[in-house]
This record gives sequence, structure tokens and C-alpha cells, in this order.
Amino acid sequence: MFDSKAFIENSLEEIRRTVGESRVISACSGGVDSTVATYLVHKAVGEKLVAVFIDDGLRREGEPEFVVRVLKSFGIKTRLIDAKAEFFAVFKGRTDAEEKRKAFREKFYSTLGKVAKEERIDYIVQGTIKADVIETVKGIKSQHNVLSQIGINPEIYGYKILEPLKDLFKPDVRKVGRQLGLPSEISERMPFPGPALSLRVLGEVTPERVAIVRKATQIVEEETGHLGTFQNFAVLHNDKATGIKDGHRLYGNIITVRIVDSEDAVAARATQVPNETLRKIVMRITREIPTVVRCLYDMTDKPPATIEFE
Amino acid sequence: MFDSKAFIENSLEEIRRTVGESRVISACSGGVDSTVATYLVHKAVGEKLVAVFIDDGLRREGEPEFVVRVLKSFGIKTRLIDAKAEFFAVFKGRTDAEEKRKAFREKFYSTLGKVAKEERIDYIVQGTIKADVIETVKGIKSQHNVLSQIGINPEIYGYKILEPLKDLFKPDVRKVGRQLGLPSEISERMPFPGPALSLRVLGEVTPERVAIVRKATQIVEEETGHLGTFQNFAVLHNDKATGIKDGHRLYGNIITVRIVDSEDAVAARATQVPNETLRKIVMRITREIPTVVRCLYDMTDKPPATIEFE
Repeated sequence: MFDSKAFIENSLEEIRRTVGESRVISACSGGVDSTVATYLVHKAVGEKLVAVFIDDGLRREGEPEFVVRVLKSFGIKTRLIDAKAEFFAVFKGRTDAEEKRKAFREKFYSTLGKVAKEERIDYIVQGTIKADVIETVKGIKSQHNVLSQIGINPEIYGYKILEPLKDLFKPDVRKVGRQLGLPSEISERMPFPGPALSLRVLGEVTPERVAIVRKATQIVEEETGHLGTFQNFAVLHNDKATGIKDGHRLYGNIITVRIVDSEDAVAARATQVPNETLRKIVMRITREIPTVVRCLYDMTDKPPATIEFE
Repeated sequence: MFDSKAFIENSLEEIRRTVGESRVISACSGGVDSTVATYLVHKAVGEKLVAVFIDDGLRREGEPEFVVRVLKSFGIKTRLIDAKAEFFAVFKGRTDAEEKRKAFREKFYSTLGKVAKEERIDYIVQGTIKADVIETVKGIKSQHNVLSQIGINPEIYGYKILEPLKDLFKPDVRKVGRQLGLPSEISERMPFPGPALSLRVLGEVTPERVAIVRKATQIVEEETGHLGTFQNFAVLHNDKATGIKDGHRLYGNIITVRIVDSEDAVAARATQVPNETLRKIVMRITREIPTVVRCLYDMTDKPPATIEFE
């Protein structure tokens, strides 16, 4: 049985000892992992921490404002960096999944590196958890926030990495969040990938295509949030398909809805969603997003699929 | 109420009057429309008809042998034309849906044109039905077998078109089939598009990619044939997605399963298939086809989607 109280006490002590008199930044995406990590370090070193939310243009509807509001409500010094145009610039013309991840990762670190310089810090906090470490080592994905695991020396970016949650699985991270007194809208949050909606736009990532998947994501979340599943999201295909809108043929977009149950993201099961819920989602997505003519549901467990498409 | 007996009597008379002493070929795909049309003309003009099955490499597992066997069992003179290599040659490098349809159509007619010359015929039978005509006129699809409807003069190919079923909807075509005494494996057959599996391979049509969708189609038919739905098939995406096979990351293929209920193909409803059936399909497809890591289910009615993807 995981003892969250003991874990927190040990962590606070270890973080204080490691950080010493240095300054620290934490790139907080608003996900449970990075928010718990940020709050833990804040509790350990107080004003020596600056939280940074990088608005890469790839976040869910209303997310940047929400995250900054939550962090400030904890009394954490917080900076919102608007890097939307820079991120879209690096995605231009890229369609390969691994190249997109790499482009995101490099832009993420160079953006954070600039802030790190401005803030004269030595340490950067990351919300790496055990599943990330396992999958990176296995080669299933190159997780952008476990640099040291994949042989990249973080010092080339000019700072050291602090990963206080890297030995925990997701349920224990949530326990730590609850024990720290975080509101349930944070501690019970669904996982959301670092490269955000860029993984959910197959093919080229453009502002227009992100807007489509952002709207579809909002609809899926509104219609399935009450199910209490592990993750629920939408993916925009690069493939197109024929459809009929206003009585005319339209070669339009395809959206896949992905909803899974899981304990720790290492394995997952495609959720059996009530048919009337699925039909409502299809109706809303195809009506509210004019270019979408088709909605698919991902029926595949992990393995053999992964939760995300890229 | 449609009177199939009267329809047949009138048709036989009209076909005899039209054809006179000419010779006729019928391109029979084995679908209910073209098989009923072929048999009707055979009844009308007997030995003056030669049925032609063009093996374009795009048919379902075992289909060419099955169709030729059935036609011969009716006493119809039948030729099997092996044009696999020629069809794959015209698909090479083509990824646009409309271009693929056009390439198929042209190769289909040039192949048939060659046979027509050899057989010295004047008429060619086609299994056009009313839904094809309506959708071609509306511009929803360019149906390959309603040339005259889209302003193409069939005489440039050197023959005239005979479309005995062009005023019937699908249920009435089946009634005619039953009235003619065709076995139920023909009269109750599911619709299958003229350009066959080429419509179900998004992106480039290659022998390898057709083999993947052919195998997936076979699995879907085996697992859902008993449902008695209007159509059930598989589509291979051009998009790929990450998955895990044998513990390792695989950037693999995506298959969508499409099952619909419909009366006449003009409108259709995505079938609510029992969850255990869908799970079995996913398990079989991802196990029996090594490159496939993900299976999706198309939840979209027609409209706003079409039944086929291209």
C-alpha cells in the first residue's frame, strides 16, 4: 500500500536538499502529473519556484486561462508564455509522427530554455511518471519529458532536471495530489499528452486543423465527461472521405473518438460507451464542425494499439 | 406494390426487341444488380449473350472463382479475363479518390472494349439501378456504370448500353432475382461497389494493400454475416498509427469496420453491433493481419457520411 504522506515528506526533504539555494522553474501543462510535481516543489522551496505555462497553440479550449488561474490560486509565481506562432512555424510541412514529436520537443525546450535564462534558474521540474519511463525504455514512445532516460543530456540546455514523481504510477500521483489538498478538478484530471493536440492531428499541424480537433475534443468531453473513464478524446485524420452536406457531395474530414479505461496507462481497454451517447457525439461533431463528414470509434485495447495515435 | 412477374415479362420483350439479331456482352461482377441483369438478358436472348468477369485484382477472397461457377451453372456462356496486373498499373502513384475512380473506370471500359471487339457485339449490359442514377445526377458519386447519365457517349467505346434495371430500387432487384429463380446466395447478396476494394484502400492501391483489406473484409464478413445487415465491410486507411506488437512499438495500419442498415442505399444507418462481436473482430484483425494495430468502427449514418469512404 502506497503511503502518500510518507512519500510527500521524503520528497519535500529530498527536493530541498537537491535544490539548495538555487532557483527552479516548472513547466506546468495543467495535467495532473505536472501540476502535482509543480505544487510539490512549490511546497518544498516556495518563492524559489516559478511555474511556466507555455501556450503552444495546441491546448484544449480555455485551458491556458484555466491552468494559470489554478496555479495563481495556489500562490505559485506563474508566467504564461505565448509561443503559438513559433510552434506552428516548426510544424509547417511536417507529417511524420516522430518528426512532429521531435519538432515539438525541440521547440518546447528552446522556449523553456529562454525562460530559464531569464529567470536565472538551475533546475527545471518535470512531471515524469513511471509509465513514461517504462515506455521510453521499451521504445514504445519517445516521451518528451524523460530526457535523461533516452540519453539526452539536459545540461546542453543549460539546466538540470528534477523529476519528483518518476517512481509513481498514475493512481499514486492522484493520491499525492489529494493528500496535498489539491482540488479534485486537478487530482482527478484525465491524462493529457505533453505534445497535446499535435498528436491528435494526423498529418500536418496547422491552426485550422488544431481548431477542428479542439472543437471535437470539447464535444467528446462534454458528452462523456460523466462516464468517469480514464481518457476521452478526438483525433483528426489526414485521410478524407466522401460525405453529403446540404444535399451535396463533400470530400470531408474524419474524426475518431477514443475513450479508454485504464489504471495506469500501461494497458487500457476501449470503453463500451452507450450507443445513444455515441450517436449524440456523431450528430454534434458532424453538425457543429462543417468540414467533418464522418465519425469513427476506436475499438482497440492497448495493446495492440497505444492510447494515442502518434 | 412492385409486380416482379410483370416487370420480367415486359423486360424480356423489350430486351429482345432492342437487341434483335445483335450479340451482347454483360460485365458481371457477381453483385446482385449485375447478376440479375445478366440472367435477365440471358433469358431474353440466350446464346447471343456472353458474360464477362473481369478479374481486376480488387475482388473479395475467392470471388472470381465463385462468380464464374455460378454463371456457368445457369448455362450462361462466361469468360474470365485476368486483368490484375493492368489494373494495378493504372493505380500506381494515384492517391486522389476521384482520380482512382476515373483510372478504374477507364481501365474497366478499355478492358471490356477489347472483349467486345473480340466477341463482335453491339450491346453491353450493365446492372445500373435507380439509386446509382439518382446519386450520379445529384453529383454525390460518379457511378462508373451510368455513362449515359453523366454525358459520356458510350459509342466512343464502340458499343451501346443496355440497363434493364435502371428504374428499380435494390429491394425490387432482389424480388426480380427471386422471381427468376436465382439462388438466395445471389438474390440476397450484399451490395458491392463496382471499383471494388479500390474504394476501400484509402491512398495508393497496391497488391499488398488490397491483400490487407481483403483479409479484413473476410474477417468482418465471417463475424457479421449472420446479422443480416445491408452492408458490412472493412476499409484500410492511408493514415498510420502507433501500436505495440510483441512488446515493441509498431507504426502500423488502421482498419475501419463499416456496417450499415439500409433499404435502398440512398439513406443508411450505422448498425449497433453487439460489443462482443466488435471485440472479436478487433482481436482477429489485429492478430491475423500483422501490420494492423488499430480497428475503428464507423458510427456515421448516411447522410452526413456516404456508405463507402471514396
